[in-house]
Amino acid sequence: MYAAEPAERVLALDIGGTKLAAGVVGRDGTVQSFVRVPTDVGRGPDAIMRSLLELADEALASAAVGPGDIAAVGISCGGPLDAVTGVVYGPPPNLPDWDHVPVVSIVQAAFGRPGSIANDASAAALAESRFGGWRASSIAYVTLSTGVGGGLVVDGQLFEGAVGNGGEPGHMPVDWRGRWCTCGARGCAEAYVSGTSIAARAREALVRWSSAPGRPPSVLASIDSAGLTAADVTTAARSGDELAREIWDETVTIAGVWLTGLVNVWEPELLVLGGGVTNAGEDMLLDPLRTAIAAAAMPAVAAGLRIEFSRFADRSGLMGAAAIALLEDSALPSRQDESA
Amino acid sequence: MYAAEPAERVLALDIGGTKLAAGVVGRDGTVQSFVRVPTDVGRGPDAIMRSLLELADEALASAAVGPGDIAAVGISCGGPLDAVTGVVYGPPPNLPDWDHVPVVSIVQAAFGRPGSIANDASAAALAESRFGGWRASSIAYVTLSTGVGGGLVVDGQLFEGAVGNGGEPGHMPVDWRGRWCTCGARGCAEAYVSGTSIAARAREALVRWSSAPGRPPSVLASIDSAGLTAADVTTAARSGDELAREIWDETVTIAGVWLTGLVNVWEPELLVLGGGVTNAGEDMLLDPLRTAIAAAAMPAVAAGLRIEFSRFADRSGLMGAAAIALLEDSALPSRQDESA
Repeated sequence: MYAAEPAERVLALDIGGTKLAAGVVGRDGTVQSFVRVPTDVGRGPDAIMRSLLELADEALASAAVGPGDIAAVGISCGGPLDAVTGVVYGPPPNLPDWDHVPVVSIVQAAFGRPGSIANDASAAALAESRFGGWRASSIAYVTLSTGVGGGLVVDGQLFEGAVGNGGEPGHMPVDWRGRWCTCGARGCAEAYVSGTSIAARAREALVRWSSAPGRPPSVLASIDSAGLTAADVTTAARSGDELAREIWDETVTIAGVWLTGLVNVWEPELLVLGGGVTNAGEDMLLDPLRTAIAAAAMPAVAAGLRIEFSRFADRSGLMGAAAIALLEDSALPSRQDESA
Repeated sequence: MYAAEPAERVLALDIGGTKLAAGVVGRDGTVQSFVRVPTDVGRGPDAIMRSLLELADEALASAAVGPGDIAAVGISCGGPLDAVTGVVYGPPPNLPDWDHVPVVSIVQAAFGRPGSIANDASAAALAESRFGGWRASSIAYVTLSTGVGGGLVVDGQLFEGAVGNGGEPGHMPVDWRGRWCTCGARGCAEAYVSGTSIAARAREALVRWSSAPGRPPSVLASIDSAGLTAADVTTAARSGDELAREIWDETVTIAGVWLTGLVNVWEPELLVLGGGVTNAGEDMLLDPLRTAIAAAAMPAVAAGLRIEFSRFADRSGLMGAAAIALLEDSALPSRQDESA
């Protein structure tokens, strides 16, 4: 079997706290294969990296190519990580026990191809810029998922910040006297609008709601409290549940104030929203956010701004990894010497 | 009288809501002359522009140079403005009646030298980068003054955003249910930590304080309410006044939360604070902010961050204008074709 030039495709690997994904992606963003398995977090980094390499083999086989047919390997992973050394150096929020795991070295040794890694949100921002089909020179990306992350791409180049971390929009405040965030600070946006936080706020509201006299029953009370999710809240809100509506409206209000602050300092031409929380839909999330931000952002910023949902759905991580692998292809500076 | 090469110095003009300033500044940041007059806001843009040109003549005379001896004219002014056309196109907060004033054209016609203009906070950020004597590749500047503004300079280049506005850190939220800001949004940092807002919060607190039983008298009650300033609050807080201390502590707490959010998304190597509110001093403002931000910012960001007061004091606007005039000198792209 003959495959085309290696430079025509990359291997994309996404290390998430819930799922591992691997795929072969063409230079133009065409997904040639895409496979996923749950992340068995309890088994630790060594076992997870072995699963990832097996999954990568499966992705290559499924696309009918071998390691020699790929130009490079890109890896998307929750930070903190060092993109230059390719090491995940502190435990990402959903990957306990990960500390100083030399992910890029492991992947390069396995496939004999240059590898590079980036923070998942930064990688996804780059994917929106490279593969999103948007017409915008400056794209801010925000993911509303288990956690909240984001990145900014200006003229095709990732805004990296002085430490290469690329900005953490989830850790902008929305209430200086507010909820404690997992990061240790107070009132971060992530403490309100992440999927985890929406569920936590719903659980707390349910306790107050149930103990207040005269409130109509909420369908949320029928869901096992530990298993209550943000999706349950949006589904109930859509069906008219009064408590769920209250929680959701507050979520959208807070998200609007927070994203107004973000566009006021990043001043993008396009703001793309991704992550599971966007499954709430255009009517429940995108439209009210557009209205709120248009009204509250600095007039010059609001006038030049579009807000859209990502089109990648659950492939944001994969496309991010592919975009990272293809960084070397573009006019951008190298993020990793070995991958030049 | 013989003067050196025109390229050795620039004319710097600062249009503020309180004062107009003009000066001749050398390429190395040496201030060769510096003159100021109050801005007679009530007389409107035509009269103010005439005053500015007279002041500029005075600054040239004081430095013993003529228009032919200067390389360029730089202008610092509150936005909104269009740096490319050189027009102040909406009323800056402290300059009512300013709308579509072709400031750069007026100045170029008067002196026959290339002119360029920038938002005052962006210009001041650039001045910190060019003349501040800091060793940092990425500098965020924030001014705590009548209003709150700021800018980001990365590798000597101003972060401009998609619309060239350069970021508005004063309009990041600190409380989604909070005080209304003059911008029309809710809970902006500016609504708490600007000099104007500190004074307004003190006036409000004074009413509550005076009506609450058992509170010790506050020296702030002895100041004419309309004339109460942020400086009165810091002076009283320093002398141990209980009410003033409460207001000031809250101000510092809010500023800490807000600036934590800012460094989390801009990720600078250095954060420089300027503006009149910084007259509160290192012990009252800089030290507690350093402590708060070090504790709350993302660990990678906090580890790489320094926080300092600007050394320009009341010359930030002038140095900003000089930095804007000198933009063409550096490796930076031109902001205005005529000034190339």
